[in-house]
Amino acid sequence: MTGRVFINCRAATMVADEVGYGLIDDAAIAVDEGRIAWIGPRGVLPRGHDGWEQVDLGGKLVTPALVDCHTHLVFGGDRSREFALRLEGASYEEIAKAGGGIRSTVAATRESTGEGLLASALRRVDDLIADGVAVIEVKSGYGLTIEHEMRMLRVARAIETERPVRIVTSWLAAHALPPEFEGEADRYIDEVVIPGLEAAAAEGLVDAVDGFCEGIGFSPEQIRRVFETARNLGIRVKLHAEQLSDLKGAVLAAEHDALSADHLEWLAPEDVPKLAEKGVVAVLLPGAFYALRETRLPPMDALREQGVAMALATDCNPGSSPLSSLRLAMNMGCTLFGMTAEEALAGATRNGAKALGLEADYGTIEAGKRADLAVWDAPHPDYLSYWIGGRLLRGRIVAGTHHHA
Amino acid sequence: MTGRVFINCRAATMVADEVGYGLIDDAAIAVDEGRIAWIGPRGVLPRGHDGWEQVDLGGKLVTPALVDCHTHLVFGGDRSREFALRLEGASYEEIAKAGGGIRSTVAATRESTGEGLLASALRRVDDLIADGVAVIEVKSGYGLTIEHEMRMLRVARAIETERPVRIVTSWLAAHALPPEFEGEADRYIDEVVIPGLEAAAAEGLVDAVDGFCEGIGFSPEQIRRVFETARNLGIRVKLHAEQLSDLKGAVLAAEHDALSADHLEWLAPEDVPKLAEKGVVAVLLPGAFYALRETRLPPMDALREQGVAMALATDCNPGSSPLSSLRLAMNMGCTLFGMTAEEALAGATRNGAKALGLEADYGTIEAGKRADLAVWDAPHPDYLSYWIGGRLLRGRIVAGTHHHA
Ligand SMILES: [Zn+2]
Ligand SMILES: [Zn+2]
Repeated sequence: MTGRVFINCRAATMVADEVGYGLIDDAAIAVDEGRIAWIGPRGVLPRGHDGWEQVDLGGKLVTPALVDCHTHLVFGGDRSREFALRLEGASYEEIAKAGGGIRSTVAATRESTGEGLLASALRRVDDLIADGVAVIEVKSGYGLTIEHEMRMLRVARAIETERPVRIVTSWLAAHALPPEFEGEADRYIDEVVIPGLEAAAAEGLVDAVDGFCEGIGFSPEQIRRVFETARNLGIRVKLHAEQLSDLKGAVLAAEHDALSADHLEWLAPEDVPKLAEKGVVAVLLPGAFYALRETRLPPMDALREQGVAMALATDCNPGSSPLSSLRLAMNMGCTLFGMTAEEALAGATRNGAKALGLEADYGTIEAGKRADLAVWDAPHPDYLSYWIGGRLLRGRIVAGTHHHA
Repeated sequence: MTGRVFINCRAATMVADEVGYGLIDDAAIAVDEGRIAWIGPRGVLPRGHDGWEQVDLGGKLVTPALVDCHTHLVFGGDRSREFALRLEGASYEEIAKAGGGIRSTVAATRESTGEGLLASALRRVDDLIADGVAVIEVKSGYGLTIEHEMRMLRVARAIETERPVRIVTSWLAAHALPPEFEGEADRYIDEVVIPGLEAAAAEGLVDAVDGFCEGIGFSPEQIRRVFETARNLGIRVKLHAEQLSDLKGAVLAAEHDALSADHLEWLAPEDVPKLAEKGVVAVLLPGAFYALRETRLPPMDALREQGVAMALATDCNPGSSPLSSLRLAMNMGCTLFGMTAEEALAGATRNGAKALGLEADYGTIEAGKRADLAVWDAPHPDYLSYWIGGRLLRGRIVAGTHHHA
């Protein structure tokens, strides 16, 4: 039994606790049966790999494949008209009258066929793949009926059969209140969110349970009830928390052993230790911060001091973050949130994987993990966060097989 | 003599004074000998085109090819280490000691071979082409000796033989003071900028003359001397003006009938009429505003009220705007500067062409202009400014010949 060895490359291993990206200047990466068998300086590659096929990567930079741990990329329609109207000075009322806002996406998603939803999602998936992404989290949340929410997650699952990516799903029926439940959020939780979650879980559609905890979303008490159902089903939770105000959603998430708390611009520094204690990942979404012209930053210093793992994601969605480049989210994490370039790459690899509970398989180049790697035309990993736009990816290694990008 | 007709497309003609992008929903675009022979609703295509070859564009959106009217995309090295060091809290002194700043780019540019400069420039050119760009302005300014400045423009010209783009060059020796002239800016103007301009013009390397008028650059009086030489040579001028302070550079530019004044965050509203009177284009560069975390906006209301044409460009350069997507600059123009989506597309087409003096050939879809078009997978031209990242281009029509993107 022999595998192959990738040679003549510079590897940013991103192994935790190593500094300088865990960079190995002239690396060899031995791969067998889709997993990394050995990684280290080429000069000390153990003799046991002597007969293995060698693949020369031409001196290029190799990183773990990127992980986009927070997206809403299955949706119908788009919101470009609303974007344009707002710039022309239209009020929120005028935009709502013109059919804008999340309700327009809900209507378009319900009206779409499953094939239409898949085709439009694949465009965004292809953008992410072209940017080095191999794992994508996809949320429901634009169907807002049991059947339409389940359909969104079936479409998300179908992406995996169409493209070489790993899809991770989140049940986000508690995203917005549909018009037919106006003023009756509790009834919506009872009649749609919770029974839908049970039905979707029974069909194997739910990897995690999410919610939008906000004045314009759902209250902590409503989210708590959804999280209790998740606990009964043995499904991990995560939460959109403290994006626009401090409702203590992140604390609620920590109390439920959440995988992650996401957004966090309004997270109080004194609540950060609760995330640290439970190992909750802070998922930062600078694309939404940018597009909404927010000004309040997440408590970066407290997150660092408490050792909370910080992930970065696109939040790809048609309203608040119409963004399909994770590398651009890395640049925004640096430029707008003051992350270091190394924190940004860790956020899109190791910590993104942790936010999805996939740290055993993805996020670093280490023996035992899946051999899913990104090959870049970049002189140094700093460059991945530094250069804005354009295409730096030159190849993808998926389960040990090399594809040119 | 027959040409071809592109049918089944939605055309944003961008013709001046038309509203709503000059949109034609079901357009026909007749092309002959590389130029547009007729454009209008398909239903009224004149019978004279009956025998012409028809090319079906599958219902896609067509715009004029984009024009990136301000770039510094020929350079050696990169500044990713400096970017990373700054995020790690390094002071400007520490960065200068580590070899950062524009002087590091000058050193790397001088050390590069011409072939090396061309190869690295082509990567950025390819990014721009993939984003729909067909005309690119390229400045000198990192050589800062007569020979190295001329070499930069020779490399710029060589791009045209390697890729299907139109290159427009600018002599920007008055970009920064090289170390060997420390404290002697006037002598640098006398010994390098002016005689170099004359030599480069004699070799046909100079389409326009540019300068960096700023406290950290050159004074208005120094720039004026360069502009006088340009006038004697019959070459149009433009200027980096009012980026970091108000030295009245834009007024100076207007006095010299400049094609454009660029950056303009510190332009005083009362100076805007001088640009309007002389037809000087305001070239806005939101990528640099974003990357430098600037907060002061150009005087947008005054520019609109006075009818100054506003162009948008990437400012692609290794220091203050490491950006190679003009569509992203359009989104930043909207998100950061409050441009409308239509102003953004006009800025990257019609007004970009005007900033280069190429409005007779580029920038709108009108009979007589070159048939250089971009074909997009976008439901509406608003979408081009709205969606961030990813790839929307599906085809390019260059001098009437269709290429799939
Ligand atoms: Zn979200
Ligand atoms: Zn510039």
